[in-house]
Amino acid sequence: MEKRELLYEGKAKKIFKTDNQDILWVYYKDDATAFNNQKRGQIKNKGVINNKITNYFMNFLEKNKVSTHFIKEISDRETFVKRLEIIPLEVIVRNVVAGSFSKRYGICEGEMLKKSTIEFSYKNDELGDPFISEYSAVALELASEKEIEVVKKLSFEINDLLKGHLKIFNIKLVDFKLEFGKVKNGEIILGDEVSPDTCRFWDIKTHEKLDKDRFRNDLGNVEDAYNEILNRLKI
Amino acid sequence: MEKRELLYEGKAKKIFKTDNQDILWVYYKDDATAFNNQKRGQIKNKGVINNKITNYFMNFLEKNKVSTHFIKEISDRETFVKRLEIIPLEVIVRNVVAGSFSKRYGICEGEMLKKSTIEFSYKNDELGDPFISEYSAVALELASEKEIEVVKKLSFEINDLLKGHLKIFNIKLVDFKLEFGKVKNGEIILGDEVSPDTCRFWDIKTHEKLDKDRFRNDLGNVEDAYNEILNRLKI
Repeated sequence: MEKRELLYEGKAKKIFKTDNQDILWVYYKDDATAFNNQKRGQIKNKGVINNKITNYFMNFLEKNKVSTHFIKEISDRETFVKRLEIIPLEVIVRNVVAGSFSKRYGICEGEMLKKSTIEFSYKNDELGDPFISEYSAVALELASEKEIEVVKKLSFEINDLLKGHLKIFNIKLVDFKLEFGKVKNGEIILGDEVSPDTCRFWDIKTHEKLDKDRFRNDLGNVEDAYNEILNRLKI
Repeated sequence: MEKRELLYEGKAKKIFKTDNQDILWVYYKDDATAFNNQKRGQIKNKGVINNKITNYFMNFLEKNKVSTHFIKEISDRETFVKRLEIIPLEVIVRNVVAGSFSKRYGICEGEMLKKSTIEFSYKNDELGDPFISEYSAVALELASEKEIEVVKKLSFEINDLLKGHLKIFNIKLVDFKLEFGKVKNGEIILGDEVSPDTCRFWDIKTHEKLDKDRFRNDLGNVEDAYNEILNRLKI
């Protein structure tokens, strides 16, 4: 496979075209941003860790019959993935109150939700990824009603699978963000990443944060937390 | 019916108990607020106009088999309504892009939506009535899944009825906010008000604003706009 021009540079990844138009070349960076780019920094080795953790979860999901964009890890920081037509929605699944949800609704961080919830954001950096209702996403033609139903079903399935799996390693899956896209035949599959950048992972007993909140909130030991996930999962 | 103690004073209304525990006494004020209370003022005669317009719409909806809390207008500014157990959600229905929706998603005011949309806010003044997803509303036990389904169905029905009716009077129903509550037998019915305070009304041809946006955005002729709705509806 040949690497071609840069297609897109995001906050945490660079995406290159390849000589196969259905395959993209992902490169994971160490750059970290938070609060819609207002906070910026670097987390040593984050690119390597997130590449490995994401691919671990993608493999795990594939084994459990959830289709993902993962094709093959090609180096510490690089992976081949299927090219998707991305649905411009961020899907946030929550099991435990944390972060913006805690502030927005005035509920203490750590409280278990009575039911897992889904929220959607419109993927748009300029607008700051605003919250959007399912109906508004359809009205703005970001996705069809049917596509949103599929995305919700997949998201809850992924939540159940990851939550159960992580429990084995004494990790609580607090909340996480997913992105989906369509392959050529129209099938909706999981894209983007599943890592301490996009998930809140807590130690199941101590509630120690093992994710990007350590960077967001200047809690220190950021690299250690990312490595701890890697170690617990025995990757 | 005897008026008893003040139960609640809101931004635009005072609600008194009566000697019948199932009936409340609503008094419409002239006070106007906008942007979560950051802007305050008075609109001359607003209380009288909103009382009459709300009761007109409640009557219209009742005739079209939508149950509401309306019982009887008792003076220019006062109405008896059924006491409800309010569902703490504001339901926003939109047909045309305007206001916060326009800013949030970077779309020009006045653009017709491909489909009517619904958004929910958590009715909580201290938190600034934050946006909430249907799933989060259920997780926070603000309403059950079934109740949310009923609320959505009623809201779209009310939208169709009001939109069609207002067209006769050359008024475009841009968007509006509804609140629902439960009566003793558990039935969900429409509460609160339907007025230029809670709806965006535009002249169908000129798009002249005939609602609280004239106050919000200092467009002048605020009272005239409210009166124009009263006159067009021949109340």
